[in-house]
Amino acid sequence: MKLAVIGAGAVGSSVVELASDHGHSVTAFADSSSAVIDSAGVDTAAVLDRKRTDGVVGGGAPEDALSAEYDVLVEATPTTLGDAEPGFGHIQAALERDRHAVLANKGPVAERYADVRALERESEGSVLFEATVGGAMPILSTIDDFDPSHITAVRGVLNGTANFILSRMATEGLDYEHVLAEAQDLGVAEADPTFDVDGTDAALKGVIIANVLSDDETEYTLDDAEVTGIQEISGSALELARADGRTVRLIAEVVEGSVRVGPRLVPDNAPLAVSGTRNIAQLETEHAGQLNISGRGAGGPETASAVLADIGRL
Amino acid sequence: MKLAVIGAGAVGSSVVELASDHGHSVTAFADSSSAVIDSAGVDTAAVLDRKRTDGVVGGGAPEDALSAEYDVLVEATPTTLGDAEPGFGHIQAALERDRHAVLANKGPVAERYADVRALERESEGSVLFEATVGGAMPILSTIDDFDPSHITAVRGVLNGTANFILSRMATEGLDYEHVLAEAQDLGVAEADPTFDVDGTDAALKGVIIANVLSDDETEYTLDDAEVTGIQEISGSALELARADGRTVRLIAEVVEGSVRVGPRLVPDNAPLAVSGTRNIAQLETEHAGQLNISGRGAGGPETASAVLADIGRL
Repeated sequence: MKLAVIGAGAVGSSVVELASDHGHSVTAFADSSSAVIDSAGVDTAAVLDRKRTDGVVGGGAPEDALSAEYDVLVEATPTTLGDAEPGFGHIQAALERDRHAVLANKGPVAERYADVRALERESEGSVLFEATVGGAMPILSTIDDFDPSHITAVRGVLNGTANFILSRMATEGLDYEHVLAEAQDLGVAEADPTFDVDGTDAALKGVIIANVLSDDETEYTLDDAEVTGIQEISGSALELARADGRTVRLIAEVVEGSVRVGPRLVPDNAPLAVSGTRNIAQLETEHAGQLNISGRGAGGPETASAVLADIGRL
Repeated sequence: MKLAVIGAGAVGSSVVELASDHGHSVTAFADSSSAVIDSAGVDTAAVLDRKRTDGVVGGGAPEDALSAEYDVLVEATPTTLGDAEPGFGHIQAALERDRHAVLANKGPVAERYADVRALERESEGSVLFEATVGGAMPILSTIDDFDPSHITAVRGVLNGTANFILSRMATEGLDYEHVLAEAQDLGVAEADPTFDVDGTDAALKGVIIANVLSDDETEYTLDDAEVTGIQEISGSALELARADGRTVRLIAEVVEGSVRVGPRLVPDNAPLAVSGTRNIAQLETEHAGQLNISGRGAGGPETASAVLADIGRL
């Protein structure tokens, strides 16, 4: 497949790096200020090198990538809320040209799911977005395989940064501020970790799952989610939990059309008590009991793997 | 889709029961001595009732089901080794008619994988067999999504009966014979549990995974697997492990073209230490770290769910 990759952060760059290994060529690649276009396939190693040294991917304008020749547009710009722009517009451009769109950007399917599906219905192209929930973990494809109507609930740890902080607080007896600073030093938490620690990122993923489960009947957005973060969790709360054989995890729950994210007590040895930056999703199925899927929920190559799996499905 | 379901045990019967709920009709259904055929779709409730009360599914001969009208043949007869008959012949009949085949029977893809693939290449039909490994767990489809070439190893607990026995021995301090008798009373172990406790069943699943990972290059059969069962595990060995924070699990490992099954020490709190009849598979990926998938690895509705997911993919 010919790929137009929009976004040159960790995920977009990993998609470009791994594309040829999966039998694809990159015909367009754009960051926020530049683009490189080559219908015969760009020299990905040279482009990634230029991005690292010069900070740009090429001499073209970013919008040129949208009109380039491609089969699949990979939307890997940062997640934005509300109108989900510019990501939404990129997907629209692809679908209006009857091309496929594969998303790593959560905004369009968390905030404008009905609009995305409406565009898809009018297009020969399809939209897939496994990478938006749980990095490399095959959560949405498993829901799709079982058919959303046979999944009764999804619960999970869907934010690795918050989980790293809670794990470290519990095992080391350290307080929130201390562990957050450590996580930032390690690169596990971003300089502005707001969306990770206030539950917004996990809630966006819960909303996407709710949209997939209800599909076209009801649209969910972040406004429909009930969200509490981990900023108020104290070391003493974790100690109390520990004395009782339990720990605290930031759990996202999608049950019967409601999306809730908040700190919850879970048994120490329960599957939900994943440690470090790992994520887990528990799917309650109608006929096959509970399925647990755990793995790395974030990271460039991990998320790129989910993007490439989606492209394989197309 | 129109389904011909061959085999009326727990899995075949569950497929028939759940088919309409997934938008399919059953146009043929056979057990070992009878069949019911109706190109407009059989009355599944009545047929399952007849099977329960009279022990037969209908008035036709079993082989009539193979020549009936259908899109997908579901092969759910018991797993046999060596020539994998009669399951192999059923798949052959479907593919030679350019129909799809979905397997719950491990024999054809564990013992005659190259033959199955050769028939598939000559046919318009496809062969899928998610249900042969880990019941409802999406193991083979996840390997497929990642592309087998990007999976470096698979390890797992792939037999629920053996795992139930080891879990109970460890938690209750009981010996093998005692727990096996209890498992048989509970219906967790069959009257003849040989293939579960001697490692054969887990090895067949490991061989299927090895075949999928190598695909057409090398064919694996049960003869290629190195297999040790759990019959010699003593209560005292489990106690020793426990004192060291570990336990024993029957682990199947597929690494670099080798398939090995045997009892292994695993940390008490490790993902591989699933308890009871649960199964787990750990996929080591090239770019996305380790993915764990756990769930119910057997059971009629669970395995039928995997069959129906395969049918959905077709």
